[in-house]
Amino acid sequence: MKNARLTNEQLLVDESLLFVGNGYLGLRGNFEEGYPSHFQTIRGTYINGFYEDVLINYGESAYGFPKTAQKMLNIIDGQTIVIRIDDDEFSLFEGEVLSFDRKLDIWEGYNERNIDWISPKGHHLLIKIRKMTSFEQLELAVIEYAVTSVNYSGNISILSTLDGNVINYADENDPRVSSEQARWLYVDNVGIRDRNFAQVTSVTKQSGLKVTATMGHDIDVEYEVKENIIVAFKHDSIQQGETLTFSKFLVYVDSVRSKESENEGLKILKEAIEKSSQYWFDIQKRHLETFWKVAKIEVDGDASVEEALNYSAYQLYASAGRDAFSNISAKGLSGEGYEGHYFWDTEIYMLPFFILTQPDIAKNLLAFRYQTLDMARDRALMMGHKKGAKIPWRTISGTECSAYFPAGSAQYHINADVAYAYIQYYLFSQDIDFMKQIGYEVILETARIWLEIGHFDDKGQFKIPAVTGPDEYTAIVNNNYYTNSMAKYHMYWVCKLSREFGETDVEWYRKMQKQLIIDEAEIFEMEKAYQHMYLPYSEELGIYWQDDTFKDKADWDFESTPKNKYPLLLHYHPLTIYRYRVLKQADTLLAYFLLDHVSEEIMNRSYDFYERLTTHDSSLSPCVHSIMAAKLHKAEKAYQFFMKTVRLDLDNLHHNTKDGLHIANAGGAYMSIVYGFAGLRIKEDGLHLNPIMPKEWKRICFRIYYQQALITITMAEKLTIETTKPIEVVVNHKAYTIEDEIHLEYEVTSK
Amino acid sequence: MKNARLTNEQLLVDESLLFVGNGYLGLRGNFEEGYPSHFQTIRGTYINGFYEDVLINYGESAYGFPKTAQKMLNIIDGQTIVIRIDDDEFSLFEGEVLSFDRKLDIWEGYNERNIDWISPKGHHLLIKIRKMTSFEQLELAVIEYAVTSVNYSGNISILSTLDGNVINYADENDPRVSSEQARWLYVDNVGIRDRNFAQVTSVTKQSGLKVTATMGHDIDVEYEVKENIIVAFKHDSIQQGETLTFSKFLVYVDSVRSKESENEGLKILKEAIEKSSQYWFDIQKRHLETFWKVAKIEVDGDASVEEALNYSAYQLYASAGRDAFSNISAKGLSGEGYEGHYFWDTEIYMLPFFILTQPDIAKNLLAFRYQTLDMARDRALMMGHKKGAKIPWRTISGTECSAYFPAGSAQYHINADVAYAYIQYYLFSQDIDFMKQIGYEVILETARIWLEIGHFDDKGQFKIPAVTGPDEYTAIVNNNYYTNSMAKYHMYWVCKLSREFGETDVEWYRKMQKQLIIDEAEIFEMEKAYQHMYLPYSEELGIYWQDDTFKDKADWDFESTPKNKYPLLLHYHPLTIYRYRVLKQADTLLAYFLLDHVSEEIMNRSYDFYERLTTHDSSLSPCVHSIMAAKLHKAEKAYQFFMKTVRLDLDNLHHNTKDGLHIANAGGAYMSIVYGFAGLRIKEDGLHLNPIMPKEWKRICFRIYYQQALITITMAEKLTIETTKPIEVVVNHKAYTIEDEIHLEYEVTSK
Repeated sequence: MKNARLTNEQLLVDESLLFVGNGYLGLRGNFEEGYPSHFQTIRGTYINGFYEDVLINYGESAYGFPKTAQKMLNIIDGQTIVIRIDDDEFSLFEGEVLSFDRKLDIWEGYNERNIDWISPKGHHLLIKIRKMTSFEQLELAVIEYAVTSVNYSGNISILSTLDGNVINYADENDPRVSSEQARWLYVDNVGIRDRNFAQVTSVTKQSGLKVTATMGHDIDVEYEVKENIIVAFKHDSIQQGETLTFSKFLVYVDSVRSKESENEGLKILKEAIEKSSQYWFDIQKRHLETFWKVAKIEVDGDASVEEALNYSAYQLYASAGRDAFSNISAKGLSGEGYEGHYFWDTEIYMLPFFILTQPDIAKNLLAFRYQTLDMARDRALMMGHKKGAKIPWRTISGTECSAYFPAGSAQYHINADVAYAYIQYYLFSQDIDFMKQIGYEVILETARIWLEIGHFDDKGQFKIPAVTGPDEYTAIVNNNYYTNSMAKYHMYWVCKLSREFGETDVEWYRKMQKQLIIDEAEIFEMEKAYQHMYLPYSEELGIYWQDDTFKDKADWDFESTPKNKYPLLLHYHPLTIYRYRVLKQADTLLAYFLLDHVSEEIMNRSYDFYERLTTHDSSLSPCVHSIMAAKLHKAEKAYQFFMKTVRLDLDNLHHNTKDGLHIANAGGAYMSIVYGFAGLRIKEDGLHLNPIMPKEWKRICFRIYYQQALITITMAEKLTIETTKPIEVVVNHKAYTIEDEIHLEYEVTSK
Repeated sequence: MKNARLTNEQLLVDESLLFVGNGYLGLRGNFEEGYPSHFQTIRGTYINGFYEDVLINYGESAYGFPKTAQKMLNIIDGQTIVIRIDDDEFSLFEGEVLSFDRKLDIWEGYNERNIDWISPKGHHLLIKIRKMTSFEQLELAVIEYAVTSVNYSGNISILSTLDGNVINYADENDPRVSSEQARWLYVDNVGIRDRNFAQVTSVTKQSGLKVTATMGHDIDVEYEVKENIIVAFKHDSIQQGETLTFSKFLVYVDSVRSKESENEGLKILKEAIEKSSQYWFDIQKRHLETFWKVAKIEVDGDASVEEALNYSAYQLYASAGRDAFSNISAKGLSGEGYEGHYFWDTEIYMLPFFILTQPDIAKNLLAFRYQTLDMARDRALMMGHKKGAKIPWRTISGTECSAYFPAGSAQYHINADVAYAYIQYYLFSQDIDFMKQIGYEVILETARIWLEIGHFDDKGQFKIPAVTGPDEYTAIVNNNYYTNSMAKYHMYWVCKLSREFGETDVEWYRKMQKQLIIDEAEIFEMEKAYQHMYLPYSEELGIYWQDDTFKDKADWDFESTPKNKYPLLLHYHPLTIYRYRVLKQADTLLAYFLLDHVSEEIMNRSYDFYERLTTHDSSLSPCVHSIMAAKLHKAEKAYQFFMKTVRLDLDNLHHNTKDGLHIANAGGAYMSIVYGFAGLRIKEDGLHLNPIMPKEWKRICFRIYYQQALITITMAEKLTIETTKPIEVVVNHKAYTIEDEIHLEYEVTSK
């Protein structure tokens, strides 16, 4: 991932693309020395799950509107390092840049800049900067400098700061970014610890959280403490041909995880410096070797695709919360878009990667909804439901943070999405203990909402009015197909698990019945509801309608819509959009993909019907179209949509990568290979594959965990499945038992 | 209207009930001397159309959301007068109140307090206070004191202030009131003019408006100027048996109407004082005699009903804007509810009273939409429409002020409502000139929106998706019956007037065609649209559905909803409400009333169906039910709903009269008599009456203008119609030509 583009627009994008993160801590790929003063920057450091509670203002409020929302905070900035020689400050915008490249090394886990630079006074330097957040010590970030003098001997000075003056980024014209710029984090304490270490502690006003940043260096520095900022400096000298190296160590400890953030930060920092930066870069590499053994995807035939796919896998890994207090925000830890909130993206778009390759992280991400279930229960009551849990549409700590309910709280489908992810995990892992300890309670409580919001009509059909489906270009409708079919699946599984676990572990089930106040009538009601779930179908078109309103709308006038009017949501009032058949993202097709439950004819007709109406204004859309196109043997389409998915951030296709990476899309890229081209599905009867190779490639290879086996799937001239223990797999509707390896024919698109 | 209740709650209600206004200026019925300090008060003085532009905050914004809203401002307070004798300040909460009554005299146009009071030191006084805003000199308010000493001789002092320290009222828990308390008006200038007059000028920051309040007295006073307040005082003496009288004069001039508010205010004030307060009370009475000659409604059989009806008529008159800059806000000039905004209330609920009894005011109110048409055109563009005008859902100056579009901008029906009012006025007045000068342009431009938001389906039916009807307990639906049928009527009239005026005045029509860029294809398209308008009908139930979603919803569980959970909007999330068949207010029934176009069978079945589902949480609801019940010969129901209408504010039935009177409901009370019990309708074929007398009353009598005739309609044992010139009237489906008087049989409900 090389990049030498120095326009402000590209630098902002690169700040996201080259961010370093480890699931706990994220640092945007800012230039340590900064940009020219007229350049804009989103200089950001974030901790997953560290937030302020911010009052939500409504022009007109109503009952049950959330009063506050959490906001992921930009925390104390430790990125700044300035090099000065002979009174010139190093900057890519001063002097002469003979060469410059920067990259994110996903195999070894750091970003790097290499600059061949002549200062305004003519001194020639080679500068190499590496930055990383450690996967082994989550609180730790290291920035390493190597400055080589080609032709200069003389003074060199280093200035390095820890800065508590931070605010969050805002853009009042983009609803996908916070609209209010404000200071949320206040410096509480600034000081030098044990002579060599600088420490800034900041606090929030509402959420009562605290974060301590501790800074140290592997060279001796002097400190100057200013009001909210600590400056470290060292005046040194360099000789022609000599290389000066030094590292800056930053440790971030917050009060979410620690009661003693200041002392703990100092302790971690001291140990980290003692071990040296080389140690941390080495251990980072070893850590990632283990990761890549399972996670790496190989695609022969297009190196840039392979690179982009593994980039996606890496960013998922760099974004996923590792503890009970965090999940994966829409932008991971790479930017402030969507205010650091967790959405259904986690369950539907990101979890597949973790379930298949990193099951321990998957369990932790799933458990987050369990940790926050009481808040979801409270929210259900607030929304007028007598029981059950309503998963928040967007949240950090677990409370509902959606301030626009038609495209927020109205998306009841998130309850089914969460349940779906638990069921997927269960089908892959057969982890009955996890389901009994956590899973059952979550899927039961979330399923209860369907009985609350649905009803049986006079023909006995179960209908669900007034919800919004995944496609936010239609809102508050009756019988959204996605919602109804996911709810049907959801309730089916509650009934199934209640019966199965109830039979095999009577004691556990009795305990659950008591604890969750389950009576058989309720389970029976769910059974009736899923069996008689109404799904809106058009006999005339032979497709499922997205919802009841869809048949009465006219098509959007795509022909008269100029390109610069996309995404529509930034150029049309919601009502204008709601009035037409136009989709932001896959809705009915997504249900087809996830549930794989209708005939290929219906899917085919639906695909043609909905694809034509879909703008893909959401980054969650192209991957689903790629997967469905692959499923329907439309290899060319599948490939095209895949390319839009895999390059979305790298090519800034949505023009908002500056606000952070589209992490769900990264998950979508992974799914497009595994669920799309390999046609993998997990069902009650086991693992299925329906592979199809696009003509552009020669070979695809990836690994997944399935029922404690590690399976390697290779699509080349033949399909090869290798496994570490015997498994059964259904390939193209035919069942195979595989002891260790099998080779099969499959569909390869001809050139 | 006597009232001696001194609880804080009742005082707040009485502030609204006893407000004095003249369509330009409104003063709440505050006690001049104030309440005890721990009492809450909404001390308010308002000018119709005087506002600040206030930024609207959205938790999540979207394209086309209004960025600012106007807010009617509480302006400079001149109400305060304090009387002090022997070191005791007069207060109803100190000393001993031997008797106290207060009333609003609607016949003579002032409010009055009479107090028989013994001061803490035992001095016995009779105090009479009258306050009014002049219908003849709109800028003028007069407060007259008469203090009689029964047993005291000694010092008495008077203190009277003009106070620029004013803020608006707020209640963060009630969406019907502003949620943000803030200072919007800033004192710009304070001073004494010509020795005897005090003047405060205040300005807004955003809207750039200015208001000057000028104060004078008909006694000599001394002034003291403090920072934002001017205090007038006089130390006098009183003898046992003597009566001390004095008046305070207040003149409010704003920059909306005057470029020289300070000089003009002073000029008006001087002239007013010169004429004496008696003059103004006399002329007020004479002014109202003229008003009452037409507006008075007589009901024999229930004096309190007659009083309440005329109270309603008076408040309509006191609230209606008299110039191009103002209309009638939801609360008139009696309080700050709904932030002083003008809604569809004007056209559908208030204009009938003016069209029938005060046609000049009616014309002015109608013309307001013409004055602000360019803003409505801009709004249409913003909402994605290629042409036409979109009337703002709520506004003061003409821009959209709705911050919650599902129950705001989505109510496209307001376009048809405005057109409907123009057509009603035209049918009553036959004022072709007005229609050509103003009306045609407004109804054409507003009708264009139907072609923008509707479309022909594959069967050729015209459908209108994604709107909200009058009943805000259902939002963003397809084919709302009210909207579609009103749009049908609206487009019918555009086509009709285009044809008729086009034939009779070719030159005018050509000018219009050019000016408004009308081609015949457009008129033809409207013709096709109204002819093929789709109206959702249930064959099974034999009723029109409120909208397409209605058949798929379950009934609200009324039985399990305790009384204290009403109004539902204050106790349930909008989504919960949207999910069920439950109405805030008449929707389908309102269309039946206004258009009177479906069979009595359908109306009857619909009435039974919808009445059961209607909470009447909106004050706009009971009157429509009363009218429809009368129409359907349900005299008992009609009477019950009428009583809820007519007593709504007097009995504070909605518990929010403190925020101002429900002026639309006042119009509804009027309509319940005229359109309800008298069954009056205006149609293309003329005036219709279908009277029905409830058993509780003996006689109803009212007057209306119809085609330049003043008609007196009396329902007693017979129906008597008297007219000042020959007219034709259809009574109970039979046409009569009336030269001067006619007596007919009609339906009198037996006792």
